[in-house]
Amino acid sequence: MSLSEQVLEGNIRAAARLMRDIDDGRASAIDELKKLYPHTGNAYIIGITGPPGAGKSTLVDQLTASFRSHGKKVGVVAIDPTSPFTGGAILGDRIRMNRHSCDEGVFIRSLATRGALGGLSRSTSDVALVMDALGMDFVIIETVGVGQDEVDIVKEAHTTCVVMVPGLGDDIQAIKAGILEIGDIFVVNKSDRDGADRTARELSTMLEMRTAAAGDWNPQVIQTEAQRGTGISELTEEILKHRDYLLSSGTIGEFLRERSQRHFMDVLRDTLFKKALSYMERDNILDKFLTEMSDHRIDPYSAVEEIISKIMPDSV
Amino acid sequence: MSLSEQVLEGNIRAAARLMRDIDDGRASAIDELKKLYPHTGNAYIIGITGPPGAGKSTLVDQLTASFRSHGKKVGVVAIDPTSPFTGGAILGDRIRMNRHSCDEGVFIRSLATRGALGGLSRSTSDVALVMDALGMDFVIIETVGVGQDEVDIVKEAHTTCVVMVPGLGDDIQAIKAGILEIGDIFVVNKSDRDGADRTARELSTMLEMRTAAAGDWNPQVIQTEAQRGTGISELTEEILKHRDYLLSSGTIGEFLRERSQRHFMDVLRDTLFKKALSYMERDNILDKFLTEMSDHRIDPYSAVEEIISKIMPDSV
Repeated sequence: MSLSEQVLEGNIRAAARLMRDIDDGRASAIDELKKLYPHTGNAYIIGITGPPGAGKSTLVDQLTASFRSHGKKVGVVAIDPTSPFTGGAILGDRIRMNRHSCDEGVFIRSLATRGALGGLSRSTSDVALVMDALGMDFVIIETVGVGQDEVDIVKEAHTTCVVMVPGLGDDIQAIKAGILEIGDIFVVNKSDRDGADRTARELSTMLEMRTAAAGDWNPQVIQTEAQRGTGISELTEEILKHRDYLLSSGTIGEFLRERSQRHFMDVLRDTLFKKALSYMERDNILDKFLTEMSDHRIDPYSAVEEIISKIMPDSV
Repeated sequence: MSLSEQVLEGNIRAAARLMRDIDDGRASAIDELKKLYPHTGNAYIIGITGPPGAGKSTLVDQLTASFRSHGKKVGVVAIDPTSPFTGGAILGDRIRMNRHSCDEGVFIRSLATRGALGGLSRSTSDVALVMDALGMDFVIIETVGVGQDEVDIVKEAHTTCVVMVPGLGDDIQAIKAGILEIGDIFVVNKSDRDGADRTARELSTMLEMRTAAAGDWNPQVIQTEAQRGTGISELTEEILKHRDYLLSSGTIGEFLRERSQRHFMDVLRDTLFKKALSYMERDNILDKFLTEMSDHRIDPYSAVEEIISKIMPDSV
């Protein structure tokens, strides 16, 4: 039985193996993804983003427990903020969500950003696709909301929750002005801290000032204290409310079209680059150019033109 | 006179115009960059990275003043952390470094991460190249050190300074374990705060534990209070010391080779993608695929293969 067939039967080990194959860039993985694709589109994807220290992992842990208590299967894709530096998502898997580690209805995968090949948003899409095919009802994507990569990742989600905490300082306040655009729900976590009410009030005021058309979704601010589980059921309800909105308003169609466009573009960019690399390696062209560039005998722009004229002869 | 000729004569307006052309993706900009390339390689590039709230902008402002007082010209490329959300580097240019705004020896440019086309590290390379050609002695790249994008940007710099502050919480501590690898110099800013000595000591201890070969660069920890200018001359000296090390140890050769490889790869990835996009637009292929994908009639992987088989016929 092929990996994809095993995944579709709910085999967690097969899913993990396929994700490893995707990571390793194996050609066979693409074939399996192709076979999975027609069976996907059932999982509801939730994005959790916010600055470091906002308590996102704890919140994800609590949301997972909440969905599990309703009998739903939950996949978690955690983008590890330490990973860009260490090169691997080591810390994440070890410390997070110990209590769900024996639960067959929970599948957790940490993703690290990795060198030049393959963007993070592409990896996230692919992993979410496998979780979807595996039969997960909800897939939660957790990411630190700072760079463009992370914002792209959040676009994968049907519902995006932006997590803030009281008193993280001025820089966060400055960022706040922009994140209004990406959040469907705003969470003020660690709401036992001083200033939580004020942060929530400020956020609400800023949200109200945005001119929303009648019938548009109105993002709410939910206060939580994830450590104790306070506010989690309200947050879960609000997520389901946003899902209802997407479906009943028809907004979901536009969302899906945009998402498949992005996925397609990611795969295209990746594949083009890999093809070009293997062409250059085959003919030892890369090394020649690198030496010439180091010596300033050729500029990178001219070198690229020369290569493209060879591999895309009709492109101009 | 062409834009590149004007830039080489030190014309700041021409440099600004060329950077705009680069942003807009004009083909003419590539021609100008090609002409500039042989005249570059003189600027020394310094990367400043660290978490939000570490006081990086103030530090950059002080470093700029320090280099200016030695008669050096300074370019600043600020990667605006608010920009991924707002879509433009608006805030940055307005609030930063007012005191240098009338100084012809200082050129400041804020960069925002922008949609799908062209990565941030590519834009940073190109802008740094123009500043180099313009005759800037030092180019400072300031970025929030969280995502892979930001780490890639820092690799552009000859000397990377990682800025920390006392007491930013546990997440930062976790990140700390990884950033040891990317910093040539470590700065504990806001050193008037409680715990500054401890943070500096902890960093030093962690740095000492790394097994460095004899003759390797040993990163130091510098305490600063950028608001008051404390520690800035020590930091400047340490940067120059690291420059001396790069040159005298011959490490610079390897660095330059790696950097031109990265620049080349960035340009290659970009150009391939743009060519493919314009091919798809010409023949209305994109729209057809998007509709089919939305309806789940084709998967993105097969769609990409179909396109590549057309534009790179000999690639398999």
